Amino acid sequence: MAEVSLHKTYPASAVPTWDFETDVAAIGFGASGACAAIEAADAGAKVTLFERNSGSGGASGLSGGEIYIGGGGGTDVQIAAGFKDSTEDLAAYLKAAGGPCVDEAKCDLYAREALAHFAWLKAQGVPYRGNYLPGKHIEPTDDSTLIWSGSEAAAPFCDLANPAPRGHVIQHMGWGGGRPLVDVLEASARSKGVEVVTDARAVALVEDGDQIVGAIMRIDNTNRFVRAAKGIVLATGGFVMNEAMRRKYCPESFRINDPIGDKDDGSGIELGVAAGGDAIHMDQFFTTCPWTMPESHAYGVFVNLAGQRFINEDCYHGRVSRCAVDQPGGKVYLLLDSAHFQQPPDFGRISIAGTGDDWEEVERELEMAEGTLSATMAFYNRHARQGRDPLFDKRPPILTPLEQGPFVALELNFQSSYFSFFTLGGLRTSTDGEVLDRAGRPIAGLFAAGRCTSGLPAWGHGYSSGMSLADCTFFGRQAGRKAAGG
Amino acid sequence: MAEVSLHKTYPASAVPTWDFETDVAAIGFGASGACAAIEAADAGAKVTLFERNSGSGGASGLSGGEIYIGGGGGTDVQIAAGFKDSTEDLAAYLKAAGGPCVDEAKCDLYAREALAHFAWLKAQGVPYRGNYLPGKHIEPTDDSTLIWSGSEAAAPFCDLANPAPRGHVIQHMGWGGGRPLVDVLEASARSKGVEVVTDARAVALVEDGDQIVGAIMRIDNTNRFVRAAKGIVLATGGFVMNEAMRRKYCPESFRINDPIGDKDDGSGIELGVAAGGDAIHMDQFFTTCPWTMPESHAYGVFVNLAGQRFINEDCYHGRVSRCAVDQPGGKVYLLLDSAHFQQPPDFGRISIAGTGDDWEEVERELEMAEGTLSATMAFYNRHARQGRDPLFDKRPPILTPLEQGPFVALELNFQSSYFSFFTLGGLRTSTDGEVLDRAGRPIAGLFAAGRCTSGLPAWGHGYSSGMSLADCTFFGRQAGRKAAGG
Repeated sequence: MAEVSLHKTYPASAVPTWDFETDVAAIGFGASGACAAIEAADAGAKVTLFERNSGSGGASGLSGGEIYIGGGGGTDVQIAAGFKDSTEDLAAYLKAAGGPCVDEAKCDLYAREALAHFAWLKAQGVPYRGNYLPGKHIEPTDDSTLIWSGSEAAAPFCDLANPAPRGHVIQHMGWGGGRPLVDVLEASARSKGVEVVTDARAVALVEDGDQIVGAIMRIDNTNRFVRAAKGIVLATGGFVMNEAMRRKYCPESFRINDPIGDKDDGSGIELGVAAGGDAIHMDQFFTTCPWTMPESHAYGVFVNLAGQRFINEDCYHGRVSRCAVDQPGGKVYLLLDSAHFQQPPDFGRISIAGTGDDWEEVERELEMAEGTLSATMAFYNRHARQGRDPLFDKRPPILTPLEQGPFVALELNFQSSYFSFFTLGGLRTSTDGEVLDRAGRPIAGLFAAGRCTSGLPAWGHGYSSGMSLADCTFFGRQAGRKAAGG
Repeated sequence: MAEVSLHKTYPASAVPTWDFETDVAAIGFGASGACAAIEAADAGAKVTLFERNSGSGGASGLSGGEIYIGGGGGTDVQIAAGFKDSTEDLAAYLKAAGGPCVDEAKCDLYAREALAHFAWLKAQGVPYRGNYLPGKHIEPTDDSTLIWSGSEAAAPFCDLANPAPRGHVIQHMGWGGGRPLVDVLEASARSKGVEVVTDARAVALVEDGDQIVGAIMRIDNTNRFVRAAKGIVLATGGFVMNEAMRRKYCPESFRINDPIGDKDDGSGIELGVAAGGDAIHMDQFFTTCPWTMPESHAYGVFVNLAGQRFINEDCYHGRVSRCAVDQPGGKVYLLLDSAHFQQPPDFGRISIAGTGDDWEEVERELEMAEGTLSATMAFYNRHARQGRDPLFDKRPPILTPLEQGPFVALELNFQSSYFSFFTLGGLRTSTDGEVLDRAGRPIAGLFAAGRCTSGLPAWGHGYSSGMSLADCTFFGRQAGRKAAGG
């Protein structure tokens, strides 16, 4: 009796009987698994999609439903709003956003294919209103399509690639477009004959020689054997919900406290590594704190406990938040004047740490040494009046002096404020979604996509909204097509 | 014909004939392998030590031969010099130094056993002069024994553990005590009957069922089969010399340019992972730039490109260097006044970037905005005169005003200055040196020690001199003893 384990492949010779026989088995019914299933079905494969929950969704279903798209002259939405975009600029931005963790081949391929991918999403039935919503938004509060969703217009990114807004959001009123996005993808998958098996959790991969030929799914408390003649696609998400894995591979994430995900326990990564796969950039995570809400707070200035600025605050809220978590001590402050301060929303758990009629008084309230925060703000305001930020190259219009008292310092506390986060490290895959071994060779029969892989959103400091769903949907399709023999 | 690969175990059933038969095979003849061999031999095992070079050494042989020792009331050297040390303080320091990557069990065990380990080193023949050398030293320039080799006396460490100097260096005139240290360990190993096979490179592990039973060594361009009845000890070092592994697992290390090591190509990590081992904290690296040479430069102040300080500079030179590499842009500046400046040694490739009769002039020479560096130094000097550093809690005597012109800014450039570095991530092992699988279970027959494991020096920001050799020698012994059946 062979052992059934996430950490070891199961020999095909020990399989008593195949309970399911299919061509392509996708594991995980978020956006990645759905797109893999659709493409595999379109390529003529029999496809079975397994999901541990009772329905589709995954972390994609909890997201904003925003997809990072552009290049090729621009999407119809970008063009209608007066923005230009090029494939080169999209690729350059993606590469800068990947930082030291970048997979350049994935960036280049996605940049070339993004417009076609947008058309494909629409063909599946994803609705887009088609308009541009100006301003700083985490997600559109109405049913608008296009928003700035990254650091495109901020230094150093704007010097590396011509900026354009690229966050394309499903038409859906308010936050939470991820749920309807998955609904559309599910409907498409079902219409193509994809068989869906819910309440089924992957517990092992089945190997025959050097080939992955199936998986063991736990269904009704019983191990069920799935033969996948053409391939398995892992689409099980990251490991943000697995504290032991985080401790081993991403310990910095314990500086913050609000994991977001569904059942992202890293099981797909474990399965892939057990089959010889290579897990990379496992220390990387995305985080954000909703400090740009209300929108006027985007004009604020961040300082660390030494009263120093540390970032151009016109970057994407997540980049600012990620850099904040790098600062010494357990918190940072967001400084605002009365022209920009409003009560922050409760869910952010951002509190007022100090107020004052001038920045000196705020400094004293925060018990900072004289001439720290106040000197930082005097320097900032002096240059902001001239439209310059000599330290971090923040730019107008977000660059504006904060000089209308009274003044306030909001505390973003890494442990008690809402710093949501998820992991970015995972299996190393080819641009076709093949899981690669440590020598860089594809593992026959094994494919993966989404956050159980390291993909477009590889580097926490460069994450932009829509980048993960772009990766999930596009490279999910790649994996599904390749698994089907395409 | 089975494949011979670092990335796959080789089936025992395919071994044509055993060319070597031993009880314990240690792979790698640096300090870790030597100590493993000695302990295994002392436990009665037949031991064979394989080394890919033509002689012993490894990265240990390139080191300063410094070992981090203390606790238990203090070593004879600490006591003679008037220092007290406790097991609790040693453990607390080691844990703080491990940061988010800490293995608390290893810290606790080592803290309890450090004095006995010191006695064991002496029993092997390692000579110690027995004196304390005050001051800031990277390595003793004479044959002294005890130096401050970490951040013990600096915040926040000094608030977490009572400080004591713990760097114990073999008696050896000048830098480079690692070579004579390995010589002593080699002589001890040979005296105990350890068989040494040089010019032998490990290319695969041999597995029988779930047990590692041997290895394939490449000798004279031929694969030779080694049966190890009791166990294999991997002691092959880190992966600093393997650019592909660094790119995948430690991409931040490309910010700097001077890998130090011998043939540290990560092969032991690959072998261990192929056997089901778990590689952890692979993103961590040690780095240092010799900015404390001459010693008067230890009194300098670091600023980043924004003219901001970022660390209490009385920390260990490696911690300061590691934090420097976190700063935006490609360089930092070390600021000195004429009371402390001397020409830096050539090998550091640290150049003069600016000078001035006051800090304002230095600021202009560095093309920094008015009121950045100069304000930083005015603030620093004002408080240093009072013996305080409100920003980073640097303490006297290293905290001293820099006010005697002319002034100088030295440039530490991450790409062109000498930032030596090596990797800290590796196999996860038990305190007995067993290689653990991803579920935390020991892999039968497989042991590891030193920089192919994640050990005491787990976190680049907390590294202290002597911590790696403490880990190599002590946990090398643990692995050897356990492999021998102890």
